[in-house]
Amino acid sequence: MTRGRTLSDLGESGLIDRIAQMARHLDGSGVVLGIGDDAAILRPGKAEDWVTSTDASVEDVHFRWSQQSAFNIGRRALVANLSDLAAMGARPRGFTLALAAPPELELSLFDGLLRGLLREAALHGCPLVGGNLARARQTSLAINVLGCVPRGCALRRDGLRVGDHLFVTGVLGAAALARLRVERKGGLIRQLAIPRLAAGQSLLGLKGRGACIDLSDGLRVDLGRLLATSGLGAEVDAERLPLPRAFRKYCEALSLNPLSLALGGGEDYELLFSLRAKTAARISPEKLSRRFGVRVTRVGTVTDGVGIAGVPEAESFLHY
Amino acid sequence: MTRGRTLSDLGESGLIDRIAQMARHLDGSGVVLGIGDDAAILRPGKAEDWVTSTDASVEDVHFRWSQQSAFNIGRRALVANLSDLAAMGARPRGFTLALAAPPELELSLFDGLLRGLLREAALHGCPLVGGNLARARQTSLAINVLGCVPRGCALRRDGLRVGDHLFVTGVLGAAALARLRVERKGGLIRQLAIPRLAAGQSLLGLKGRGACIDLSDGLRVDLGRLLATSGLGAEVDAERLPLPRAFRKYCEALSLNPLSLALGGGEDYELLFSLRAKTAARISPEKLSRRFGVRVTRVGTVTDGVGIAGVPEAESFLHY
Repeated sequence: MTRGRTLSDLGESGLIDRIAQMARHLDGSGVVLGIGDDAAILRPGKAEDWVTSTDASVEDVHFRWSQQSAFNIGRRALVANLSDLAAMGARPRGFTLALAAPPELELSLFDGLLRGLLREAALHGCPLVGGNLARARQTSLAINVLGCVPRGCALRRDGLRVGDHLFVTGVLGAAALARLRVERKGGLIRQLAIPRLAAGQSLLGLKGRGACIDLSDGLRVDLGRLLATSGLGAEVDAERLPLPRAFRKYCEALSLNPLSLALGGGEDYELLFSLRAKTAARISPEKLSRRFGVRVTRVGTVTDGVGIAGVPEAESFLHY
Repeated sequence: MTRGRTLSDLGESGLIDRIAQMARHLDGSGVVLGIGDDAAILRPGKAEDWVTSTDASVEDVHFRWSQQSAFNIGRRALVANLSDLAAMGARPRGFTLALAAPPELELSLFDGLLRGLLREAALHGCPLVGGNLARARQTSLAINVLGCVPRGCALRRDGLRVGDHLFVTGVLGAAALARLRVERKGGLIRQLAIPRLAAGQSLLGLKGRGACIDLSDGLRVDLGRLLATSGLGAEVDAERLPLPRAFRKYCEALSLNPLSLALGGGEDYELLFSLRAKTAARISPEKLSRRFGVRVTRVGTVTDGVGIAGVPEAESFLHY
């Protein structure tokens, strides 16, 4: 058996050329200059605000080579960032990648990571415009995304009011289910979250919208963050939470509480947002679903209380 | 002796609060929303292009705790990024930080890094607008900077023409000298490069300017990059290279070739740029120095040859 080629076989400039070559077909509106200079040049449109966010994926902390394909590790790394843009209602404009990896990393894994990143980037019109390569003992991907919104219109966490209705997009617990299966049955995690960019942009255009956050750490933690920003509380209707049927059944079979898992599982990358009561009375969740292009479920109400009522207390369970 | 507090004593949200608190006094023009939401919001000015660049500093690769203070490691990490903005002629607008570190890292080192970063940020009006914290076995700082230039005016690597005169700001070899001293004598590296932001912005306003790059890896490598972009060569006047006297003397004492060291040492973070011959004939280096607020030295000419003539071939020497 021949040994696979590693990063050290190509060296830094060889790897950078390889990335530039792989990324060459990616086009972005308003990218004046991409990879290859001291910095990338992007052109803002008229009356735009720009939003920027950073997220990192670290080997053995956020991913394991044994549990996910390199392709999916790459995709997931960008999903986490795009989800932050979605939560602002932003349209992606480009991203930079700081990739650190051991010289002995197999080139095939490097290629897989890049292909995953660039695939996700292509799906959402978010070109790779620059980056950095460094040696390190662990592989990690630190990504910075840039997006734009109409000036003064970004969705924010601080837009919450008492009486607002709370909604989530999609379903909760799918990511937790995928991880559970891998833990119990082995194999690779195949489930990938979808950054809710279209939903975020639709919400941004909705009169009577309140606050918005993406669900990266689970409904309990992220709703807690949203509430903390405004010093308010919430009443959650646990019965209404959109949990996938397969998830419920699998939890039952393992004697796990699906609700606890979904509340704390994390990595669903759905949006949690609020609408003023008046607006919520006017637009049904079904109508919102059609408008957003994804299922929307009402899950509770904002109160002047403290903390989250209506759901069980936090338990400890898998959190990787 | 009591053990110093570590990162794990504060936890992720405690550390984020700590950073937000330390960064609260940093103001940036056009920062609509800083740390604390899913993304930061920045407001572009009229007719601006935005430039973005990423650079990482990894423990035991780019820095060693034993050779630099945490404060200087933090400052240097941002200097490397600001230098990329300088090479585009850009004005800094803000930066994000993806910090990865072991839970057992002493809080005093974390504080030192942050203070260094924020000090450098304050010096150049580049507020910390967001970031990410992650566990890792090695400490690393992946930084993304954003800056702005008048639309269509960014300095680029691809502006070179045959006959252009080549210039550098400041002196070369100071960083190599600092590292040499630490290697031979122990102690801490105290020398810190200055990102040539004002010089870059002055150059941007100069008619008859050509290409620009910052010297992060040494004149030989970075001039090579500049030339490769346009497929041209250069004749360098080795006698004219601005090497600090202390550097020459120290090299002599150690029987090292100061020229080789300065050409390959790296981390000087000076600007290397070209002017059209006509412009160079009109403006003396002294005049440029006054205009740029830093010494400017003419070091050579762009030719239609191949590679760099006039300087010795690359040797191998310390490169850390």
